[in-house]
Amino acid sequence: MRTDQRNVNSLRPIMITTDFIKHPEGSVFIQVGDTKVICNATIEDRVPPFMRGQGKGWITAEYAMLPRATQDRNIRESSKGKVSGRTMEIQRLIGRALRSVVDLDQIGERTVWIDCDVIQADGGTRTASITGAFVAMVLAFGKLLQTNTLKKMPVTDFLAATSVGVLPDGTEILDLNYEEDSMANVDMNIVMTGSGEFVEIQGTGEEATFSMAQLQTLLALANEGLSEIFAVQKNAIGALSERIGETVK
Amino acid sequence: MRTDQRNVNSLRPIMITTDFIKHPEGSVFIQVGDTKVICNATIEDRVPPFMRGQGKGWITAEYAMLPRATQDRNIRESSKGKVSGRTMEIQRLIGRALRSVVDLDQIGERTVWIDCDVIQADGGTRTASITGAFVAMVLAFGKLLQTNTLKKMPVTDFLAATSVGVLPDGTEILDLNYEEDSMANVDMNIVMTGSGEFVEIQGTGEEATFSMAQLQTLLALANEGLSEIFAVQKNAIGALSERIGETVK
Amino acid sequence: MRTDQRNVNSLRPIMITTDFIKHPEGSVFIQVGDTKVICNATIEDRVPPFMRGQGKGWITAEYAMLPRATQDRNIRESSKGKVSGRTMEIQRLIGRALRSVVDLDQIGERTVWIDCDVIQADGGTRTASITGAFVAMVLAFGKLLQTNTLKKMPVTDFLAATSVGVLPDGTEILDLNYEEDSMANVDMNIVMTGSGEFVEIQGTGEEATFSMAQLQTLLALANEGLSEIFAVQKNAIGALSERIGETVK
Amino acid sequence: MRTDQRNVNSLRPIMITTDFIKHPEGSVFIQVGDTKVICNATIEDRVPPFMRGQGKGWITAEYAMLPRATQDRNIRESSKGKVSGRTMEIQRLIGRALRSVVDLDQIGERTVWIDCDVIQADGGTRTASITGAFVAMVLAFGKLLQTNTLKKMPVTDFLAATSVGVLPDGTEILDLNYEEDSMANVDMNIVMTGSGEFVEIQGTGEEATFSMAQLQTLLALANEGLSEIFAVQKNAIGALSERIGETVK
Amino acid sequence: MRTDQRNVNSLRPIMITTDFIKHPEGSVFIQVGDTKVICNATIEDRVPPFMRGQGKGWITAEYAMLPRATQDRNIRESSKGKVSGRTMEIQRLIGRALRSVVDLDQIGERTVWIDCDVIQADGGTRTASITGAFVAMVLAFGKLLQTNTLKKMPVTDFLAATSVGVLPDGTEILDLNYEEDSMANVDMNIVMTGSGEFVEIQGTGEEATFSMAQLQTLLALANEGLSEIFAVQKNAIGALSERIGETVK
Amino acid sequence: MRTDQRNVNSLRPIMITTDFIKHPEGSVFIQVGDTKVICNATIEDRVPPFMRGQGKGWITAEYAMLPRATQDRNIRESSKGKVSGRTMEIQRLIGRALRSVVDLDQIGERTVWIDCDVIQADGGTRTASITGAFVAMVLAFGKLLQTNTLKKMPVTDFLAATSVGVLPDGTEILDLNYEEDSMANVDMNIVMTGSGEFVEIQGTGEEATFSMAQLQTLLALANEGLSEIFAVQKNAIGALSERIGETVK
Repeated sequence: MRTDQRNVNSLRPIMITTDFIKHPEGSVFIQVGDTKVICNATIEDRVPPFMRGQGKGWITAEYAMLPRATQDRNIRESSKGKVSGRTMEIQRLIGRALRSVVDLDQIGERTVWIDCDVIQADGGTRTASITGAFVAMVLAFGKLLQTNTLKKMPVTDFLAATSVGVLPDGTEILDLNYEEDSMANVDMNIVMTGSGEFVEIQGTGEEATFSMAQLQTLLALANEGLSEIFAVQKNAIGALSERIGETVK
Repeated sequence: MRTDQRNVNSLRPIMITTDFIKHPEGSVFIQVGDTKVICNATIEDRVPPFMRGQGKGWITAEYAMLPRATQDRNIRESSKGKVSGRTMEIQRLIGRALRSVVDLDQIGERTVWIDCDVIQADGGTRTASITGAFVAMVLAFGKLLQTNTLKKMPVTDFLAATSVGVLPDGTEILDLNYEEDSMANVDMNIVMTGSGEFVEIQGTGEEATFSMAQLQTLLALANEGLSEIFAVQKNAIGALSERIGETVK
Repeated sequence: MRTDQRNVNSLRPIMITTDFIKHPEGSVFIQVGDTKVICNATIEDRVPPFMRGQGKGWITAEYAMLPRATQDRNIRESSKGKVSGRTMEIQRLIGRALRSVVDLDQIGERTVWIDCDVIQADGGTRTASITGAFVAMVLAFGKLLQTNTLKKMPVTDFLAATSVGVLPDGTEILDLNYEEDSMANVDMNIVMTGSGEFVEIQGTGEEATFSMAQLQTLLALANEGLSEIFAVQKNAIGALSERIGETVK
Repeated sequence: MRTDQRNVNSLRPIMITTDFIKHPEGSVFIQVGDTKVICNATIEDRVPPFMRGQGKGWITAEYAMLPRATQDRNIRESSKGKVSGRTMEIQRLIGRALRSVVDLDQIGERTVWIDCDVIQADGGTRTASITGAFVAMVLAFGKLLQTNTLKKMPVTDFLAATSVGVLPDGTEILDLNYEEDSMANVDMNIVMTGSGEFVEIQGTGEEATFSMAQLQTLLALANEGLSEIFAVQKNAIGALSERIGETVK
Repeated sequence: MRTDQRNVNSLRPIMITTDFIKHPEGSVFIQVGDTKVICNATIEDRVPPFMRGQGKGWITAEYAMLPRATQDRNIRESSKGKVSGRTMEIQRLIGRALRSVVDLDQIGERTVWIDCDVIQADGGTRTASITGAFVAMVLAFGKLLQTNTLKKMPVTDFLAATSVGVLPDGTEILDLNYEEDSMANVDMNIVMTGSGEFVEIQGTGEEATFSMAQLQTLLALANEGLSEIFAVQKNAIGALSERIGETVK
Repeated sequence: MRTDQRNVNSLRPIMITTDFIKHPEGSVFIQVGDTKVICNATIEDRVPPFMRGQGKGWITAEYAMLPRATQDRNIRESSKGKVSGRTMEIQRLIGRALRSVVDLDQIGERTVWIDCDVIQADGGTRTASITGAFVAMVLAFGKLLQTNTLKKMPVTDFLAATSVGVLPDGTEILDLNYEEDSMANVDMNIVMTGSGEFVEIQGTGEEATFSMAQLQTLLALANEGLSEIFAVQKNAIGALSERIGETVK
């Protein structure tokens, strides 16, 4: 039994609120247990210098935490004058993951900016960010479809993420909260598509290791959890869900 | 008649949600019309180096906007690697204003960190931040009273802020929204105490000026509006309101 | 009686030396008591990116102190690698104030750079900077008039600044020196035009407040002091003074 | 057949030169095909602030490329004034990986600094860095054993890394060179211990995905390649190899 | 004949004003032709970390130009957020030069901060800075002698600097102004002691070279010019001059 | 007798390895005793903004040390976020020296980037960098001659550097190693052309001075040593040496 009474293969409750903020093209508030993230998607009508002239688009992400998203106040990165290694890793992960399910040729020379701002943290902020950012991005593309700026939904498949891990007693668990994450020997983030393909596997043993057998169990747990998450996303996206996959890469 | 149908002396609807986030000692979500700010107060058990050894406390504030709080996405200050002049001005203003109604000797060698994060901006983010931050700070001190860490509420009076301004046609108005703020000739932020004393007056004519008569009208409008805001704060704070003023500076 | 024997409504001696340095288009050395500031105005034949293509000009200011302008040596901001919040506030104030009395359309796509470098500080460096910068700017425009680059003086009115404040014993005073500034409960900077309109009021109670009655007294003191300062400016500017106001905004 | 004529399961030639530079406690030059990295290990007799007083050690890594390690000159990060997200990710990976096979309690309050400087890059610089850094670290601990500063070798197991990937035609391959890395749909870095446990799996599909079946093939390829790499490390380390594992975590 | 009618071996007029600013322990305004520099010396009662516990002092220098010290406005280094290579070179040179004529053991654990701020530049700002800074430093030590904080003047000899150079036509000249400096093939700065010893020789051919014979002529010119400069310094320092040399290194 | 048994006028063994790294246009590994530097030359087909449109080229240099090039680990400048004054001085020296023997008009609007990375330091890293960088630059120009991008070798003469100094006992010595450099009273770096002209003399007495007679001895020692170094360079460059000097400035 886990500290919050869940089964090893149970997700925390997930809630996705759409159109959370009025300005962005796509705006989502995602809650995974006590982890709460605002995910906004912005469409900009140009691409970064290294992409210009290729007729295709780009997707990039930024991630931040409010100072008191955590138990102790963490120093604002704008005050420190630089972004931490952890933040950069997460930003790169989110952008890369989203790009894997978008046909960049379809969106033309546009940049999709994803902003994930963690309001409250209780473990799994990067996976919640990916799950929420996917919805915000689909909604933003929906706007471009409405105005006929795009002819087809450029998103080829659903995309979501969750974490799995191994507790010190060897138990493999799904969707770690902060307390579990702090004590786990192994922490693995899995990003998958709606059709069950892997996009990203990041498994790491901080001062610990894991066996091939454990890896297989963890992959199965993630697979199971992600099926549920896709259903929540589909529900949040509504009718627009139908159009996901109308483009194939 | 104003663009949002308000009278010249009408405030936008104000809503203050307390205990918004679980980790901070004081946490408030304030909405003033479409301006939405999370205000968190953190108590840290030490003071900055320049204050050490004096046996008194300090209050400091940080202010930020989510990139899509605004119509166009603004670049994250952590990415730019530095905090803008505007942000610094606002941070200094919030801290200074709160310190004017707190007996710093009462709180001992502790720092109150105020974090104001604008989720959605529609004019008046700095004044909404002050109004919300005051409530968050009082709630945080309330925690210290509960645990007997403090014997008396160190807050000497209520504190709130609003804006007034002059439209191009010469009309003086209360509580400018973004559209009004953009076109106003004169923009003035007023911070006042519950007993009607000024804490801060910042009136500025961007490429314009204002007369003594206009100044008097603006001060009267602010005074009127702030009375209503103090009532909303009192309601949000609840029973703890009684203890404000039990310390005198 | 004040520490330097002045009356409550007396200014310190003001001296403005024009053509102080040979390279700038306008160069002024202003002394207000023991506060000494070099104010240089530079005309650049282009505007910042956000102003391009509008056919109008821009005025921007930078402010700095020599490390030993003050009693204790302060660390050079170039060594710290960043500009302090205080410096940014002052820079923004100077630029905004000057823009209020200049018809930016008249000057075409040019930037006026104002550099205020405090050589010695004894209170009131920001107000002395504004008063001196105004003169440097007028002289620089004078050069453009001489070469027929401009047809009309684009300055619509005189502009100067001073400080007023409230001592702990409640006395309201004009033109605070450093010692008075350090102990004052309320400190207010007033920027006015030659015709008596307000451009900026920044009144602040650091850990203190002030009443409506006190505000009125302070405004009257400032008004009185500024009349004298305009006379000193007029004298420094000489014949060119006649042309101020030939453009109306 | 691959562009350099290797079989899908063939490593490039690996050469490890020990005692490459005279000053560091451990110094290694590793060549994996045309990828060439200097790995130096430094022992410092203190730990970072967040580790002090716990009686245990820390291992941290820095990674950099010479500007012309690559085909086109890349800008020096010291000139840019900041470290890129990619560099930070790699540095964190190297440090984390090494810590997984060291008993930090054994080394006392000391920090092992690992510096990996890429002299020439041809794909797989991060995995070559880990493989080389492990050897440099063991040699550095060897010095501490010689002087009896340490009683036992604190390294619990061998550690090495390699890459696997999927080419656009679906072929799974081992140890990608730069050309292969550039075109691969999937790129996976695997860090393993000498006893076959995983330390880190980082698999990523840049604008692509991979199936469970492909994942299994990739893991098997990595496993096979790493066995060979452990043999090269053992040879480079010599007699000191015997002492690896005399401590168990 | 030179552009300003000087002979090849003539210095520009030098004027040294002492006690220029009221706060610093030593304050000098030096004019060498149209080059004008404020040199302030500050005594701080501690040394930088790398010098602590050795019972000896340190001398360090900072150098800056006002933005309009030059014909075109140069960007403030505080705005750029970093100090240029040129500035760093000059700062290091000034500090090193002054340290060569001070017995650091005599001054105890104190730091002398030298601030050289160029108000107006017309060539030779670094040599004027050294010449002026020497005087400011001696005056600051004079204060410490007056209060008996020091028993002996720690300055062992006079110190001054000048420039020499080779014009495109091969003429060797003394004390280059900006126009000459811009066209010279060779530019050499010489720092010497009052007793004729070299402290620093920095000769450089920017896209040019110079022969042994030319070097000898340049050294002789510098020697001649510096004799005159020492006389000006002696005059500025007054009675305190007698005490220079009472300590020998 | 010196600590490493050399005569006062003996160089340490010099070895220059060409084509050290595969990517750069010119790549050299230079060893001067235990000082080891990688010098790479990159040809870029454009010049920095301040040079554009003049039809001539530019040469610029960057210099860095690996953290463990020295006895104690030094902090990476990329981690510090800024380049030290010492590094900037050396970079500027290397670039300036190389430009003195290149006809920049001949190379058209191209930049030669010189990267000097010190792998191991034992004194004289800046002079070894110049000596090695010259060879790397000639090799890079050789590539442009081969492809007929250039018609003539733009290098007008050989160029090399060495150090001379004065030990505490007054002995003048050639080519100081680290130990000697640390104790020397005077340290002088001399850059010369193959035809015996000076390019740069930087002599400095850190807390010491030197006489005219000592200067003459030092110059003679440097002259002698540089003759030998030119021979080593000639040998490394091979047949391409013949073409040096076919352009005259």
